[in-house]
Amino acid sequence: MEMAVGEAIREADYPDGPPLAPLAVSLGDPAGIGPEVIAKAWAIRRAHRLHPFFAIGDRRSITAVWDGPVETISHPSEAPEVFETALPLLRVDDPGEITPGTPNLAGARCALDSVEMAVGLARSGAASALVTGPVAKSQLYAIGFDHPGQTEFVAERCGVAAENVAMMLVGPDLRTVPITIHQPLGKVIQTLNSELIVSRARTVARALIRDFAIPQPRLAVAGLNPHAGEGGSLGREEIEVIAPAVAQLQAEGLHVTGPLSADTMFHPAARAQYDAAICMYHDQALIPLKTLYFDSGVNMTVGLPILRTSPDHGTAFGIAGKGAASPRAMIAAIALAGDCARARAGV
Amino acid sequence: MEMAVGEAIREADYPDGPPLAPLAVSLGDPAGIGPEVIAKAWAIRRAHRLHPFFAIGDRRSITAVWDGPVETISHPSEAPEVFETALPLLRVDDPGEITPGTPNLAGARCALDSVEMAVGLARSGAASALVTGPVAKSQLYAIGFDHPGQTEFVAERCGVAAENVAMMLVGPDLRTVPITIHQPLGKVIQTLNSELIVSRARTVARALIRDFAIPQPRLAVAGLNPHAGEGGSLGREEIEVIAPAVAQLQAEGLHVTGPLSADTMFHPAARAQYDAAICMYHDQALIPLKTLYFDSGVNMTVGLPILRTSPDHGTAFGIAGKGAASPRAMIAAIALAGDCARARAGV
Repeated sequence: MEMAVGEAIREADYPDGPPLAPLAVSLGDPAGIGPEVIAKAWAIRRAHRLHPFFAIGDRRSITAVWDGPVETISHPSEAPEVFETALPLLRVDDPGEITPGTPNLAGARCALDSVEMAVGLARSGAASALVTGPVAKSQLYAIGFDHPGQTEFVAERCGVAAENVAMMLVGPDLRTVPITIHQPLGKVIQTLNSELIVSRARTVARALIRDFAIPQPRLAVAGLNPHAGEGGSLGREEIEVIAPAVAQLQAEGLHVTGPLSADTMFHPAARAQYDAAICMYHDQALIPLKTLYFDSGVNMTVGLPILRTSPDHGTAFGIAGKGAASPRAMIAAIALAGDCARARAGV
Repeated sequence: MEMAVGEAIREADYPDGPPLAPLAVSLGDPAGIGPEVIAKAWAIRRAHRLHPFFAIGDRRSITAVWDGPVETISHPSEAPEVFETALPLLRVDDPGEITPGTPNLAGARCALDSVEMAVGLARSGAASALVTGPVAKSQLYAIGFDHPGQTEFVAERCGVAAENVAMMLVGPDLRTVPITIHQPLGKVIQTLNSELIVSRARTVARALIRDFAIPQPRLAVAGLNPHAGEGGSLGREEIEVIAPAVAQLQAEGLHVTGPLSADTMFHPAARAQYDAAICMYHDQALIPLKTLYFDSGVNMTVGLPILRTSPDHGTAFGIAGKGAASPRAMIAAIALAGDCARARAGV
């Protein structure tokens, strides 16, 4: 049966298959490790019980680095069946020559087209979630991309203001959320305010309920300064900005603690006390996550109408095309997307 | 033989004992967990092969929380022999009533007197290193203490400018050094400059050579901004401040890399590439260390004429007097002080 791209999947189309639409996985920069780790994830899909997914991008970026089966599909609805025997691929415009490890502007356009299409499919319901492969920001900036990162781009395409989404880093026993993200550290303080913290924390709490099936999520809010300001002697943002936000969230009935000293929030016993750590800036959230789960961390965008995850690593051009890239983070991103899609659907 | 406090130990005093003077361990705030964890460390001194040490502080702060043997000594030279059968204690003025968990100003004065005496003994050579128990900064501030922390206090007492010492956090396979320490985050950028980074890094390199017996230490220098500034698009301090410092250090023949993205510096494979991570601010250095080694991290002050370590935890008044405090970090601090004393002495 022919269906237009973007038409929602009906359960009747899969009498014996999964009740959810497949996941859309954009390949990222064709010269990066995205195609390789996505192909590798498909190859061990059964061991990880991955929900059916299809890749979006250029065919040659996969075949250049992988000799397994790839089958072009014309619509996401074909993916679940193809997924059994080949990596399903929805093609975007040919980016021209691809040399793994050597990015170019045509590849950046291909990466951007791929994520654009993937967002559209997820929004339409043809895909139950979006998983994005790594892109090269410097290449994207060179073709006129004016968003700080894919997160902000996806938010805009979903019609959601960037301040209403949050970047959640997800590891096996740790979730962290930076309130400010891709900003010079010197601009963090002027950007932080109680409203932003409250808004992001609400978004995170809703995501924990809806996407992680945690009925009463516990949030731990980090301080900004050493020792969370030590009562004001090492900085006053905790008193003037963060504590009022915590009080506001508590008044709304949320289980929120803080501001806490950031350096003592992430050891095993501390991690067990909350479902997500709300952090004030990028490295405060990323350092603990990547210290513990460098090659298996997932970046999830919460607050969108769609589900979006990505592996928490870059294009790694230095090892692209050598077969050496670990698919662990991509597998974790795909697994999490599937888990969250099931949680949202209540199945 | 009677010796004045402060007189250097002569090897001839210990024909069969260790060739080094004992370690001086200040008890910290009498109402905190310092006395308890120091007593517990003594109790399992043999299993950890701890170098002989003596405590400095008030006797009741120990007996209130521990029923093992304590023997008052009149000089450090008595410590090694006493150490075999009791915790040797050099007393300071009585702080009055002690209630574990309830600090008071008399206790803060006792803590300050203890560390002051311990510094003097270490400077004189009567102690081969100084280990400091945890103090309550808010209590110290209340009695007029005007140093940000014990580190700066010890530096001043050793006649060393604070900018010439560095705080090194030491875990089993990670050493981190914050360039700026107890400063509000908003003041970090104005404090950072190339000269400060160069000065601290040199200090760290010398300590790795002298105190850790690493002939050619490798330093990894962190960036300040997300992704180390991503080529200038997320901040310019890497280009303008940090990279010139790295170049200067390299020109001096040191093995230095950076500026590196801080979030990817601390996973196991990254840690194996350097002997110390030079970090730009407190939490950048403390978060990875405490995430990995929360209850066994050691804080070492390098750049002093004396050796000084301390457990990387606070007074923990909430659990003081309950017998629940873990001595792991104190044991690690004492063990490291002994190791470094041996390295300095070349034995």
